[in-house]
Amino acid sequence: MSEPLPVVVGGSIAIDNVKTPTAEETNLLGGSASYASLAASYFTSPVHLVGVIGHDFPEKHLQMLESHGVSLNGITRSDGASFTWSGEYHENMNDRTTHNVAVNVLEDWTVSLTPEVASAPIMVLANMSPQNQQQMLEQSTAPERFVLADTMDLWIGIARAELEEVLKGIDLFVINEGEARELAGTTNLIQAGKILRAKGPRYVVIKLGEFGAILFGPNEDHHGLFRFSAFPLEEVADPTGAGDTFLGALAGYLASLGHLDFSFNEIRDAIVRGTVVASYTCEAFSTHRLEKLPEEELLARLELFREMSCW
Amino acid sequence: MSEPLPVVVGGSIAIDNVKTPTAEETNLLGGSASYASLAASYFTSPVHLVGVIGHDFPEKHLQMLESHGVSLNGITRSDGASFTWSGEYHENMNDRTTHNVAVNVLEDWTVSLTPEVASAPIMVLANMSPQNQQQMLEQSTAPERFVLADTMDLWIGIARAELEEVLKGIDLFVINEGEARELAGTTNLIQAGKILRAKGPRYVVIKLGEFGAILFGPNEDHHGLFRFSAFPLEEVADPTGAGDTFLGALAGYLASLGHLDFSFNEIRDAIVRGTVVASYTCEAFSTHRLEKLPEEELLARLELFREMSCW
Repeated sequence: MSEPLPVVVGGSIAIDNVKTPTAEETNLLGGSASYASLAASYFTSPVHLVGVIGHDFPEKHLQMLESHGVSLNGITRSDGASFTWSGEYHENMNDRTTHNVAVNVLEDWTVSLTPEVASAPIMVLANMSPQNQQQMLEQSTAPERFVLADTMDLWIGIARAELEEVLKGIDLFVINEGEARELAGTTNLIQAGKILRAKGPRYVVIKLGEFGAILFGPNEDHHGLFRFSAFPLEEVADPTGAGDTFLGALAGYLASLGHLDFSFNEIRDAIVRGTVVASYTCEAFSTHRLEKLPEEELLARLELFREMSCW
Repeated sequence: MSEPLPVVVGGSIAIDNVKTPTAEETNLLGGSASYASLAASYFTSPVHLVGVIGHDFPEKHLQMLESHGVSLNGITRSDGASFTWSGEYHENMNDRTTHNVAVNVLEDWTVSLTPEVASAPIMVLANMSPQNQQQMLEQSTAPERFVLADTMDLWIGIARAELEEVLKGIDLFVINEGEARELAGTTNLIQAGKILRAKGPRYVVIKLGEFGAILFGPNEDHHGLFRFSAFPLEEVADPTGAGDTFLGALAGYLASLGHLDFSFNEIRDAIVRGTVVASYTCEAFSTHRLEKLPEEELLARLELFREMSCW
């Protein structure tokens, strides 16, 4: 067994205010990199968190991350107000309305990696502007690396050329169903996956929310495909951050393998972990469930998920 | 290995006129029982088809079914015009518009099973009115039986009480996602499955279209759940009948086992077959692909599907 590899996770670190049909909570830990780094911390160490926070960012959120071994040295502290998202989920817990996005300190942020962070061989470009993602890529000093990236519909709309540039430099791209159809220009998801792979990444994962995900990769035996269901949940408290958790756990598991030349089946196993860890994020607001996850519980759910999905 | 059991499939036998974004065909074989009986014929024999056709029904459709060993003795021939459906699929191949439904001979049809057909231990109530489904149930003379049923949104709207009565008499209920949410009165699919099981059937299968299906049954080890993806298709020519094919193959495989006290894992294996056989229906208009399906091709796709879904 090789030593786990260091991971760097860059993205947003936010204050979230979330409303659902049954509850409402404010001043929560949010942001793509917060969820992703916490999820990765269950599989590997060190996990370097890269992002920007304002003067008003709650210390308790940082303490929680640190208590999980997430390194905060890569966080920039700015005089402005923290990036804040306020949104509301509707009855089906899938559709949501964003009431307010205060970009604040994120607006003028330029990534600046310390030498230690820049050398991490597993790099996660969680959802943030393609410009920030490109800055991270360009500052990487790892002689060999595996880069995972996520995005959102906003960037496809306003920074498509920059996003396409990022795609040329990464190894694994995670994107949700609707965004995949838009970016690939086709309604058929199997075609979309192949079109997105042709833009650069060796692996593409199309996320289907409660219906799971599809992995596309260089595996001719399986037509290059693997299909996953999501772990079924009877109660969804707050799905915010599920996709970011998925990405972080996926990256963390890969880092735990201690090498970079992943096989198709290793990527597949990583996605299984991502799917199951993401299910915990949905069970409570913010990271409240994810931050209290005993290893034996995670292992039991992983086994249950296999029994529910494989024959 | 026990002898395969006889299956009876009741439902609609239709003439379909189908338009897609790229093609249009008329005078096609359609109807829930046509697809289901043909699919079942790949696994067991005899398969008795029960339904009503008009004077104008194309003989070639009947000949095709007969060439697959489907017994046509249970078909009622009426003087009226055949049940006809005309519809159009939109760009994403999921949404469709029904341009015309000519109920014709189906309007006054009352099920009347011959003694041989009535004694079949595996009974499939493919999509038709709950009144016709109840007639089939009441005429069954099998001392022990396993009954599978499907429905559609129309019946939930106009014959809900009759449908709920049917649910009390069946063993496995197949329903699509939107209908399940409506009939169960909840947006959460896991809750919906459990609510529907409480209405009577020991097993419930919620179909998710291209995203697969969820099986709910009496298996406490897996929380009573199994999740399936659909077989991924790059080109969908015409999805009409995919759900009916799924149901028929599922029933045919169960019949091939030669007993009626199915385990959870046998139901699971049957759904795997249903999913894979249904993928062929989507590859061409009407039953054109399904009716030309060499066994070795089906077995190869079944194995490929397992490799794409299990770890």
